[in-house]
Amino acid sequence: MGEVMRIFFLGDIVGEPGREAIYKRLPSLRKEEDIDFVIANGENIAGGRGITPKLSIDLLRAGIAVVTTGDHVWDQKEIVDYFPTEPRLLRPINWPEGTTGSGSVVLETAKGKVGVINAQGRVFIQPPLEDPFTRTEREVQRLREDGVKVIFVDFHAEATSEKIAFGHHLDGKVSAVAGTHTHVQTADERILPGGTAVITDAGMCGPHYSVLGRAVDSVVWRFRTGMPTRFPIAKGPVELGGLIVDVDTETGQALAVKRFREIIDEATPAT
Amino acid sequence: MGEVMRIFFLGDIVGEPGREAIYKRLPSLRKEEDIDFVIANGENIAGGRGITPKLSIDLLRAGIAVVTTGDHVWDQKEIVDYFPTEPRLLRPINWPEGTTGSGSVVLETAKGKVGVINAQGRVFIQPPLEDPFTRTEREVQRLREDGVKVIFVDFHAEATSEKIAFGHHLDGKVSAVAGTHTHVQTADERILPGGTAVITDAGMCGPHYSVLGRAVDSVVWRFRTGMPTRFPIAKGPVELGGLIVDVDTETGQALAVKRFREIIDEATPAT
Amino acid sequence: MGEVMRIFFLGDIVGEPGREAIYKRLPSLRKEEDIDFVIANGENIAGGRGITPKLSIDLLRAGIAVVTTGDHVWDQKEIVDYFPTEPRLLRPINWPEGTTGSGSVVLETAKGKVGVINAQGRVFIQPPLEDPFTRTEREVQRLREDGVKVIFVDFHAEATSEKIAFGHHLDGKVSAVAGTHTHVQTADERILPGGTAVITDAGMCGPHYSVLGRAVDSVVWRFRTGMPTRFPIAKGPVELGGLIVDVDTETGQALAVKRFREIIDEATPAT
Amino acid sequence: MGEVMRIFFLGDIVGEPGREAIYKRLPSLRKEEDIDFVIANGENIAGGRGITPKLSIDLLRAGIAVVTTGDHVWDQKEIVDYFPTEPRLLRPINWPEGTTGSGSVVLETAKGKVGVINAQGRVFIQPPLEDPFTRTEREVQRLREDGVKVIFVDFHAEATSEKIAFGHHLDGKVSAVAGTHTHVQTADERILPGGTAVITDAGMCGPHYSVLGRAVDSVVWRFRTGMPTRFPIAKGPVELGGLIVDVDTETGQALAVKRFREIIDEATPAT
Ligand SMILES: [Fe+2]
Ligand SMILES: [Fe+2]
Ligand SMILES: [Fe+2]
Ligand SMILES: [Fe+2]
Ligand SMILES: [Fe+2]
Ligand SMILES: [Fe+2]
Ligand SMILES: [Fe+2]
Ligand SMILES: [Fe+2]
Repeated sequence: MGEVMRIFFLGDIVGEPGREAIYKRLPSLRKEEDIDFVIANGENIAGGRGITPKLSIDLLRAGIAVVTTGDHVWDQKEIVDYFPTEPRLLRPINWPEGTTGSGSVVLETAKGKVGVINAQGRVFIQPPLEDPFTRTEREVQRLREDGVKVIFVDFHAEATSEKIAFGHHLDGKVSAVAGTHTHVQTADERILPGGTAVITDAGMCGPHYSVLGRAVDSVVWRFRTGMPTRFPIAKGPVELGGLIVDVDTETGQALAVKRFREIIDEATPAT
Repeated sequence: MGEVMRIFFLGDIVGEPGREAIYKRLPSLRKEEDIDFVIANGENIAGGRGITPKLSIDLLRAGIAVVTTGDHVWDQKEIVDYFPTEPRLLRPINWPEGTTGSGSVVLETAKGKVGVINAQGRVFIQPPLEDPFTRTEREVQRLREDGVKVIFVDFHAEATSEKIAFGHHLDGKVSAVAGTHTHVQTADERILPGGTAVITDAGMCGPHYSVLGRAVDSVVWRFRTGMPTRFPIAKGPVELGGLIVDVDTETGQALAVKRFREIIDEATPAT
Repeated sequence: MGEVMRIFFLGDIVGEPGREAIYKRLPSLRKEEDIDFVIANGENIAGGRGITPKLSIDLLRAGIAVVTTGDHVWDQKEIVDYFPTEPRLLRPINWPEGTTGSGSVVLETAKGKVGVINAQGRVFIQPPLEDPFTRTEREVQRLREDGVKVIFVDFHAEATSEKIAFGHHLDGKVSAVAGTHTHVQTADERILPGGTAVITDAGMCGPHYSVLGRAVDSVVWRFRTGMPTRFPIAKGPVELGGLIVDVDTETGQALAVKRFREIIDEATPAT
Repeated sequence: MGEVMRIFFLGDIVGEPGREAIYKRLPSLRKEEDIDFVIANGENIAGGRGITPKLSIDLLRAGIAVVTTGDHVWDQKEIVDYFPTEPRLLRPINWPEGTTGSGSVVLETAKGKVGVINAQGRVFIQPPLEDPFTRTEREVQRLREDGVKVIFVDFHAEATSEKIAFGHHLDGKVSAVAGTHTHVQTADERILPGGTAVITDAGMCGPHYSVLGRAVDSVVWRFRTGMPTRFPIAKGPVELGGLIVDVDTETGQALAVKRFREIIDEATPAT
């Protein structure tokens, strides 16, 4: 058995409240939990819609090693040209060949290589992309042939059936598969028989009293009336939703998995 | 303050494994948890597809007071004519006027009246029904005018946004709103400011090692190939997913909420 | 038998090219075709997205008696407050009770009353609205009880199954049902056994060399790459798509139906 | 300039009425219209659901050179194993690599090679397949490198935007693109600037008084009530919907295009 690498994954970061809470809490959390590697999904960090180059830089500076995304990846236009310049910022791997950016990255750490892959589902989510099952499997194989044992996958998808099936599909081939996109943490974290840790959705990092991070009244009004409205980012306490996975660096198998869920009362920026 | 009524809600029961586990475990659980009233969603109890008159009777005999359903309600043809004969079996309330069966029921208990309402969402779920927000609100108002304080709502829906907004919409008007349909329990149970307990999804009662209760290999194969196949109910240990809510019978407000999640190793029928 | 009323219906008007072509061509067309009453769908008249108060006024001044809409009805925010002031501007009738505006109107003409109803489908179209089948039927009944015989329905919907079923549903109860929304005229105009003229889609009034009125290159690029882009209104010749229906004013039945489809080479404003 | 090849394409054949009408009418039509090559979409030929080996053989024997399909391709289980044995029976080309059967075929004729490609859209149609734009383009390139000039594409898709964009995408690269799947013929046949004939939907070959070939009452009842029911194939006169394209065999460009639409009163089998 090799060393144990502890990976901390944070679900969709929503707006300023989400990111400020992370900047404030992450340093202490790293120590408390003895974390080796941090990954976060940043697809909603720019006011709920996408990510900018500056915010991507901020996340990396805050100690997040890899930033994943999802269906909101291109919401901020300037990110398109930024993608090729930052290999630690990922877009789903199953975009068509030739799409800017990359869907995976391998980083060197003190405990060896870590591969991160980002993929997107095709049920109840837009736009239609190439098959995530075959694309991810192919990339996993490529990484493993390159000697990468520790592999973490963020599967950004809506339907529970697709997400659970995807985890089983990769069981024994990757260290962990964390679902994102629904912004609601599920209570089904587990290690599958082949040694892959899974959770259907890691949850979000954003306003706790909200609808997916948005102000409650605006979303309720929309559902009740159907009329167009804006959905401002909600205020108040912030919840951080994520997953902590211990991986055996020699086998790449998950040794332990636990959900992370914390409510941060004052989400003011650290000074 | 009135008495405390403890309500136990069980998410979608899947096939024989799900129902046998309930028949076996429910009696002891009632005592351990001191439960007053049990509600269960039975939309997948007949081999995963709908519910039959016989299975509806079995559930009621097993001590479940009200059986809710969802998009699979009519899967078994003989249930259509059975509906008008059994008021404790509900279909979503937002079916068009004139549809057979009912979407709500009020039962007398030792601790007073309990109202149960079943509604269905409209995002990523078929068929299109009438607006659940207004229909449910109207029914809640009717029940409250009849003096019903304790009201439990099963909102069968897919999208987290619709489900969370729905809970907020009813906050302060009902005792609890439990989501169903995704078959994956969420970790976000809470009591909203107005006193309504909510959870985005209560989870399912069905095979633990499965995709929504179905055999893993068949579903993974379907996603990988797209080819038609059958999805047998999975075997092995069964998980029971649900919610326990303590309600103040005088105000109708939730006093406490906790998720229920248990893995039952041997789901063999009780003898 | 009563008089014959000739109704001319124009499908979704797209942007400036569409409306300018109508302003230019409609006067001569009225004479050539001896038209009594003109209805047009204006949901895309404001640069492809919705309709403004000014453009609504322009259409009515140009001799269009009633303007229908569809899923794009609220795209221009200022139209919301304008709706209650203009009964000849319709939004789909199956929006929830309490929604601003109206889904039907009855106008007096030299040949008697004409009722126009606008409804929206629920398959492959957003947002989810109330059941169009029952809502429209109820409104038709109300109009008929008020002595309105000539009734024209614009059913704004995507799926051919829903559109054709809707026409049959109203057969014998209204004079005509014209589908809109796909922007492509169908070749299936006919009079059903009960005397109702139908067409699955009347087509659009907009740039002929385009994708639904939008510049070809932008839409093709979007489908090829999936990347976000803007979809400018296309240039060049304009096609006018519509339906001409002759109605017996005494019975309300359609006597004749023909598609209207014309390519206008120079869509410059009339001077 | 080369010879002129006249290709006759028939839209989705629905059930026994559709196929019997074709068997009866095709021989005379071939002579009247001087047709060189016949293609038909057979995805609904087996009672509305898929195609069997026997029905595939019947179509080929009736003089149809190539049979295309669509989302209903696998509805009849026995067709799966039959596919590899019959290269003239196509399934959409954008199924994942490794899927049984083929999405294109090249046949020798008296006037040279004819290539036929079948693809499926991804908007409002299931299941999610690989990108049809790139897959079809790649196959077209392969055929052209093999010297095939005359290429006909059946694009089985729902959304008019995707279908029209697809035609433009292939303009100048293939002889014709005919849409299928909606079962309603569109009135927009044309030749694009690059020489490709297109129509958004060729229509169906099935019962004329019906909803997509199904009995009117059953479908209307379904939309009105939402309740499950069976959708029998309708009776009565049959409509044949298709497209006739004249192609220059040297350039592969379309020289002329016309819609074909005919109502056959007695669709009884030829004796
Ligand atoms: Fe998100
Ligand atoms: Fe997302
Ligand atoms: Fe369900
Ligand atoms: Fe279910
Ligand atoms: Fe439109
Ligand atoms: Fe529309
Ligand atoms: Fe189809
Ligand atoms: Fe079809």
